[in-house]
Amino acid sequence: HDRNNHFTRYGDRGMTLEHEINESNQYYLSKGMAVIHKKPTPIQIVKVDYPKRSAAMIKEAYFRKASTTDYNGVYDGYYIDFDAKETKNKTSFPLSNFHQHQIDHMKACVEQGGICFALIKFTLTNEIYVLESNDLFYYWDEQFKGGKKSISKPTIDKLGYKIDYSLNPIIPYLNAVRKIILKYKEI
Amino acid sequence: HDRNNHFTRYGDRGMTLEHEINESNQYYLSKGMAVIHKKPTPIQIVKVDYPKRSAAMIKEAYFRKASTTDYNGVYDGYYIDFDAKETKNKTSFPLSNFHQHQIDHMKACVEQGGICFALIKFTLTNEIYVLESNDLFYYWDEQFKGGKKSISKPTIDKLGYKIDYSLNPIIPYLNAVRKIILKYKEI
Ligand SMILES: [Mg+2]
Ligand SMILES: [Mg+2]
Repeated sequence: HDRNNHFTRYGDRGMTLEHEINESNQYYLSKGMAVIHKKPTPIQIVKVDYPKRSAAMIKEAYFRKASTTDYNGVYDGYYIDFDAKETKNKTSFPLSNFHQHQIDHMKACVEQGGICFALIKFTLTNEIYVLESNDLFYYWDEQFKGGKKSISKPTIDKLGYKIDYSLNPIIPYLNAVRKIILKYKEI
Repeated sequence: HDRNNHFTRYGDRGMTLEHEINESNQYYLSKGMAVIHKKPTPIQIVKVDYPKRSAAMIKEAYFRKASTTDYNGVYDGYYIDFDAKETKNKTSFPLSNFHQHQIDHMKACVEQGGICFALIKFTLTNEIYVLESNDLFYYWDEQFKGGKKSISKPTIDKLGYKIDYSLNPIIPYLNAVRKIILKYKEI
């Protein structure tokens, strides 16, 4: 029985990354370890029907761009805020996966003492990394000063925290959050 | 020029409480004072059309009950989480304005060191109070042990923090949050 292989396969059982994170958050919540939720998708509602004796039905609505990140909550007294991104790239993470307003949002949260990061999944190899927002900000800002439009995988491997798929939670990303918190406590 | 009266009228200019809070959050964000947002309304999407050359259109969807509270974010290193409730009652706040899962959510957040509260508006008198979650929990739990199904206005006035309508932000509720944080620092 190849334990590593067994765990690795959790990543390609057909669960989406969002589903994997939601399951992990559910585990953390059930164990009283953290309260972190995905925000609902923002929708612009145009037309609603109110039929008698049944629930209001939305007949016309459109997806809106989220102005913040997808996940936030609280862990051990810290405000946690992150976005999850998948890439099919093998060698780098394209910065175009982020939008300026998401970066602005995370910068504002960091200013207030929040812990922010990107949870990046390389889908072809099923590898997941937590990349702290300050590292993300650096490469984000550099691209406008002639820097690359992506962060190379070796850089992510060096600066980020690799998260191995696990049984419970599926993606134990709080391990990385703990290390980030410790790092700032030491400064 | 009656300054107080001028300020008081902000509350009944036709803005909803949600709009007033969103404007206040926008002010706090623009001043770098806090990052607090309303979560989007959760929607269950049933049918989506993908017309060529135009945006995806949701043709059938339903409102879902929120499993958490409406607002959260970060202020001065603290995780902030609250719900806003309006009542037309003059003498008390009916606990039926809350749902068990919202209380459970706030209890879990408090366990993690978050600052949680209810922002309660008495719409007939345009009075707003911040009631700390621990006080809310007490009366919530008491109702199942033979206690009242509501919290009297004098009790809210005694335990809560009255927030006067202001110009900028319209509802300066961080003043109450600061007092709550100080209270816990002193313990
Ligand atoms: Mg995302
Ligand atoms: Mg509400």
